[in-house]
Order: sequence, then C-alpha cells, then structure tokens
Amino acid sequence: MRIPTILSFIITATLAVAQSDEATIKKIFDEALARGQSYDMLRQLTQDAGPRLSGSPAAAAAVEWSRQTMQAFRFDTVWLQPVLVPHWVRGKKEIGKVVQSRTSGTREFAVCALGGSVGTGTAGIAAGVIEVKTFDELKQLGEKAVRGKIVFFNRAMDPTRMNTFAAYGGAVDQRANGASEAAKYGAVAVIVRSMGSNLEDYPHTGSMRYQPNVPQIPAIAIATRHAEELSKLLAADAQLQFYMETHCQTLPDAPSFNVVGEIRGTDPAQEYIVAGGHLDAWDLGEGAHDDGAGCVHAIEALRLLKAIGYTPKRTLRAVMYMNEENGLRGGLEYARQAQLLKEKHLAAIESDRGGFTPRGYTVPTDAVAKQKVRSWQPLLEPYGLTDFSQEGGGADIGPLAGQGVHLLGFVPDSQRYFDYHHTAEDTFDKVSKRELELGSASMAAIIYLIDKYGLK
Amino acid sequence: MRIPTILSFIITATLAVAQSDEATIKKIFDEALARGQSYDMLRQLTQDAGPRLSGSPAAAAAVEWSRQTMQAFRFDTVWLQPVLVPHWVRGKKEIGKVVQSRTSGTREFAVCALGGSVGTGTAGIAAGVIEVKTFDELKQLGEKAVRGKIVFFNRAMDPTRMNTFAAYGGAVDQRANGASEAAKYGAVAVIVRSMGSNLEDYPHTGSMRYQPNVPQIPAIAIATRHAEELSKLLAADAQLQFYMETHCQTLPDAPSFNVVGEIRGTDPAQEYIVAGGHLDAWDLGEGAHDDGAGCVHAIEALRLLKAIGYTPKRTLRAVMYMNEENGLRGGLEYARQAQLLKEKHLAAIESDRGGFTPRGYTVPTDAVAKQKVRSWQPLLEPYGLTDFSQEGGGADIGPLAGQGVHLLGFVPDSQRYFDYHHTAEDTFDKVSKRELELGSASMAAIIYLIDKYGLK
Repeated sequence: MRIPTILSFIITATLAVAQSDEATIKKIFDEALARGQSYDMLRQLTQDAGPRLSGSPAAAAAVEWSRQTMQAFRFDTVWLQPVLVPHWVRGKKEIGKVVQSRTSGTREFAVCALGGSVGTGTAGIAAGVIEVKTFDELKQLGEKAVRGKIVFFNRAMDPTRMNTFAAYGGAVDQRANGASEAAKYGAVAVIVRSMGSNLEDYPHTGSMRYQPNVPQIPAIAIATRHAEELSKLLAADAQLQFYMETHCQTLPDAPSFNVVGEIRGTDPAQEYIVAGGHLDAWDLGEGAHDDGAGCVHAIEALRLLKAIGYTPKRTLRAVMYMNEENGLRGGLEYARQAQLLKEKHLAAIESDRGGFTPRGYTVPTDAVAKQKVRSWQPLLEPYGLTDFSQEGGGADIGPLAGQGVHLLGFVPDSQRYFDYHHTAEDTFDKVSKRELELGSASMAAIIYLIDKYGLK
Repeated sequence: MRIPTILSFIITATLAVAQSDEATIKKIFDEALARGQSYDMLRQLTQDAGPRLSGSPAAAAAVEWSRQTMQAFRFDTVWLQPVLVPHWVRGKKEIGKVVQSRTSGTREFAVCALGGSVGTGTAGIAAGVIEVKTFDELKQLGEKAVRGKIVFFNRAMDPTRMNTFAAYGGAVDQRANGASEAAKYGAVAVIVRSMGSNLEDYPHTGSMRYQPNVPQIPAIAIATRHAEELSKLLAADAQLQFYMETHCQTLPDAPSFNVVGEIRGTDPAQEYIVAGGHLDAWDLGEGAHDDGAGCVHAIEALRLLKAIGYTPKRTLRAVMYMNEENGLRGGLEYARQAQLLKEKHLAAIESDRGGFTPRGYTVPTDAVAKQKVRSWQPLLEPYGLTDFSQEGGGADIGPLAGQGVHLLGFVPDSQRYFDYHHTAEDTFDKVSKRELELGSASMAAIIYLIDKYGLK
C-alpha cells in the first residue's frame, strides 16, 4: 500500500497549497471590498492635488501626497527619485472656428491643443482646410494641394474592435505624427479628430511629437462629433476658412520625482517585484482613470498584502512614475537607477488602463513565465479575471525589458476608457468604488502569486 | 481510404458550421458597435417618456413609445397586451428626522417611502427607535421592547460578495417583509437601510408587501450613510425621537399593457423564443439601468438580427413587460396568454440586470439545455461572455417555467448596479453607449444560437 499512500500524500499536499492560495486570495479581495482604501485615496489624489501635468505645481503636490500616503501606511521605506521632466503649458483656452464659408456662418468647435504642440499665439492661423484619413492620402495629395492649408485628420477609431486600446492603436498615428507628416507638404497647422470611442462634444488631448528637421506647426484636437460636422461643412464648401488660436508653449525642463514605496522581503537573495502607475496626468481633467487609478492600485496592492498579514519573500515596491504622458522620463529613470544600483527585478506590473472592473492581465512574453501566469487562472477566475490573452506590460515599465524583467499589465474592462481618456471628463465621479477596489485586489493577487511561486 | 475521407468530410463540415456561426456572431457585434440603436432608444425611453411607475402617465407614454419604436423597425407584428396594474403613488417628498435627543440637535436624513407602503399622512409619526439587524433579533427583543417604536433594520449588503445580486438577496428581506415582521410585535413604523453597495447620501426605494392579518405600518428607506449616522446617534442616546412623514397611497388598479413585437419565423411548426425586459420603473430616477436597458436590449436584439439579414426559423418576440417592480402583473399575464393561446415557447431570455458590460448568461436548469448553452461558450468568449455559472432566468419570465419553457438571463457586470438601483441616480447619463450596445448584441447572439440549434 506504499504507492497509494504516497499518491494520497501528494494529492493532499497539492490540495493544501491550492486551498491556501484560494484562502489568501479570498482574504485579499475581502479586505479590498470591505475595507479598501483605493477610493478614498483616489479622491484625495484627484481632487485635493488637482490636474498634475509634469512640471505643474499640482504634480509636485501629487508627489508629496504619494510620499505621505505610503508613509502613513508604514511601508518600510518611501523615497523620491529625482527626474527632470518636460514642462509644457496649455495657456489660455483654445479657439477653433469656421470664419468664412459660402454655405454656413461662423461656427465654433470644441478644440484643444495637443500636448507638446507649439502655439499659434494671439495672431492665430486662418487658412483653408483639407481633410484626409491617412498619411498615404496626404502623400497622394502632395505639396500642391496641401501647401498653406490646415490638414484635418479625420479617421475614427474603429468601433468594431472589442478592445478599445486596439482601436486607439489604429488611429493614434494621426495625433502623434500628423503635424510633422503634414508639415512635410507645407501645411500650416493640423486638426486631429479626437481619440474617442463615441461621438462627443469635448476634445481629447494627448502627446504629439515633431520629427527632426521638419517645420513645427500647431496641432489641435477636435471633438469627435465636431469632426463629423466640420467634415460636412467641407463637403458643402471646400473653400471654407478655419481659424485656430492656441497659447501653449514648452518651458525649460522642470525638476520632479518618481515616488517609490517599499515593503522589504524576508529573503534578501530574491529579486524585486515592482507595481506601478503614473502620477502625471493631462491637464483638462482630474486624471482619475488615467492614471490616478493605477497609482492607487499599486499603493493599495501593497497595503492589502500588509493588511492580511502576508510576509513577502521578495521586496515589493509601489512606484508612482512621473511623466508617462509626455516624455516617459520617470519610467526611463527608474530603469536606469535599477541598473546602476544592480537592483535585480523579477517582475514589473503596470496599471494604466483605468479603474474599471477587472478582466485579467497581460502576461509576460517569455514562454515559461507566460505559462506560469496562465496556470494561475483558475485561482483568479472567481474574481472575473479570465482574460490572459495579451502579452506585454505598459509604457512605464517598458524600459525594464532590457534588464530581463518580466512585464505584466493589469487589464480592466476597456469599454468606457476612451470616453474619458485625456479629456475634461476624466474625473473622480466617473470611477466606481467597487470596480476600483477590485482592481487593487487583482494587483495584490498577482503580486502574491509571483512572490510565492516565481516565474520560472 | 474510405474512413479518412469520411472523417475529413465530418471535420470540414463541423468547421464550416463553426466558422459560419463565428461570422454571424461577429456580424451581430459589428452592427451593434458600428450602427447600434440601443443608446438612442434608451435616451428616448428614459428622457422623453420620463419616470414610468405602473399606472403613471409616463408608463402609458412608454407603452406607446415601445409600440411605435418596434413598428418603425418594421417588426412583422406589434401589439399591446392589456393588463391591470397596481397604482401606487409617492405623493410629496418624505421627511425623516431626529427631532429630540439628549446628545444631538435635530438632524434630517435622506429617506423615501418604500413602494406599496401606506403613508403616515400629514400628522406623521414620532416615536423612539429600536435598531436590529435580523428578524431573529427582533423576535428576541419581543413585543415589550418593540411596541410603540419605530424598528430600524440596519443590516448592510455583504460587500465581500463578488456578485452584488447575491449581496442584495442577503439583505432584501428587511425591505420586503420588515414592516409586517415589526408590526407583529407592535411597531408603529419601520426604517430600512437602503439596498446599496456603498455608503451614499440618497435612498433606494423598492417594493415591500404586507402580510395578511398584520397591521399595515409605514415603511421608509434611509440612505446607507445616513443609516450609519442614525446608528451612531442611537448608540449615544437610545431614547432619541424620530419623526417621519410620508404621503404615499395605493389607488385603484389602473389599465396598462405589455408591449409585444414579433418577427415571424420561417417554420410555423417551431416553438417561440421570447426576449424581454420590464417597461415600468421606480419613480425616483429615469429607470435607465432598471430596466430601460433591458427593454432596448430586447428590441435591439431583434433589430440586429434583421439588420444582418438573418432569417429565423422560429418566431422571435421582444416583450416589454409591465409592472415587474410592484406586482409582476405583466409577466403573469404574458404567461397566461401564452397558455390560453397555446403558443408553445422554447426559451425565454430576460435582461434585468442593467446595461453594463456583458459577462455571460444564466443558463437553463434542465441539464441537456444547460449543457447545450454552455457548449456555445467558445463562440461567445471573444466578446467577454465567459460567465455561464448561474442558473435561472428573471422575474418576468418566471411564470413561463410552469409551461416547460427554458429560462435564461443576460448577465452583465454587477459591480455598479446597486449604486443606482431604485434611486434618483438611475439616469441615462450613468449608461455607457458601448456597454449598452454590447448587451444587445449578447442578447441577439444567444437568440441566434437557440434559434439555429434548439436546446435539446
């Protein structure tokens, strides 16, 4: 009867491990749902600190808030990691309007400058408009058609993509590169259809960049519904004149910080696990979903593990990266310091997809690590975490890839994200307490499993 | 080589079927996401018709809106099914306050009458308050402690339940039966903690019923945060006096209707499939999630199938049931008529859990039908439909169970539902267009599969 006894022992041991994981993960979720702090934290970050674009006074307030918050939770160490950030300011409210048309009167549109754009100044720019959907179309039109004009990029995000981030990826080239592409053919400015999932009356800002040795022309976003209307006006009168006025400018780089909070692991030989979100946010709203949610997810994940009495083997860090939106300086600096200090990281987990109801995780690209994460799915499914389909991490942790760190991302439901992203609508009241707290628990659960089982 | 040929044929045929289902379901979702009508319909229903409690003028407007909308979509037949409904009216705004206390001044609370309650009239009721969490506790206190008092039921929904409907099910006895249970021990009125997932400053109404031969005493709900505050005041001064005033009353039953829209199937020998939501809604809000969403899900599901050119074998119906909230008269009448007219139904599908992002379906209790529905999961998972764990349907279709009809329910994410349910916050602006349209597509997809493959 020896073999059955051994088998029985193995089965019992396996069940015991699985049951203990189930129990620990249930404790995490129970703590989050019954006594979670994410929602209160997010209210403080979004409403007390305020809009916190890199270099702004509110960004400095957010740094100090993060430091104090993690200290108040008695993390073992909390410190600031200096980083110099771009400092772009919007200036006074933008104007975008049709000023002259055979078929319509003047008509104002909801517009905003794109982040990083030069401004038109008080003189503004008035010119004819030429509408295109793609850079190919622009190329075919060529300099003859484009010179002296405002180019209007009007390709919508594909509504039929279930994952709205995929739809965003299919349209955001217009925002990121539209200005330089149009300037190559002599355009004087660009209007870009906002990156929004639906027809809306408010514009979405976001970063753009200028290519070297191409004239820097002003770039604005226009609300999606207004993009449709402008397109109709152009169809009726191709000669209409558009006036735009923006007062944005880029100031000298400003000093700022990543904020790091650490809970030390019991085994100093073990590699680190880092969870994070980005602290900076676009200036139009409160940066509630993008990415206040990610910041509080990371802080709360560590607090939850402490609260249930879990003692990690590995050192765990929550990092509030600065300047994801328009420079990524914080993510780059964190990775640089990790390399300099020879802080070997096992895994980095990012939350930068909003505070919506959890659906799963992006998994590491390494085949063994990926398989390991996917093997945990049965433990996580009871909490709605069923999507382990995508690979990769997020922008801030990207720079760690070169150090062999496994990258993962928290994946919440994506359907509402691009209603709010980079707009005045990204405010605290758009966040559901339960959805947010569940995100923090989802972060804590994956940190727990990685700490306990590694990724090999 | 005969066997491989047959095998190859079988494999090819199986793949062809699966691919055609995949393609059809993708067409449904593409149509919903690119050209869906649910959101526009919901705006009309919630904002043009207005609050539509059974018997109200707005309920009549909602009936007519449903009829016209389904006719405009050119359903084969649209008709009204008469039903007599209870007619309860709230009257002027309720008052609930602490009027006398050793430890605090007067304090007003956010309260509302529960649906079906008798009113206090202008005299109001002033009395001491006794707080309990359960009917057992009430029983132990007994008549001596309770007589002449207002009983305050203050058991919260369990926040650790992932499914908020389960948490609701664990607390709603206080609202449904609290008044009669308290009246048995001589209570003069009851205050019930609102059925809300979080701490809020607004009350949740909902139906209550009186048991036969028990005095009918007034019942109000109090906002969850205010329930906590009242509890603290009682802890400081058990003798405090509470005043409540409600002006609700039950009028004679009123004539109303279920609204039925039908697309006829090609095979008259086949049984029907009916999809539905309830048209009535509590009077405090706009009934957007409860259950305007379910109504437009049902209408749009049929419109989607028409729009993609699908010709059903079975006759499909969309039913807007009247009076789910406080009587279920519509659901009972629909089942009665189906039996009278010998309209044999194969399946009934209900959407009454809000317009949130789809998670799955409740499945039939019959083992064979359940297994069949679960076998479709791989076709539905790409749309986030992964939860096939629960059995049963919904309140309105419950009466069809006796006729052997398979009951299913659409299951959206439940995390936000009880922030809005039966409150002034259940308004159109709380609904996401993409989440709503995906719900309609989820309803259409399951109708398509049932029509094509049956449930045997």
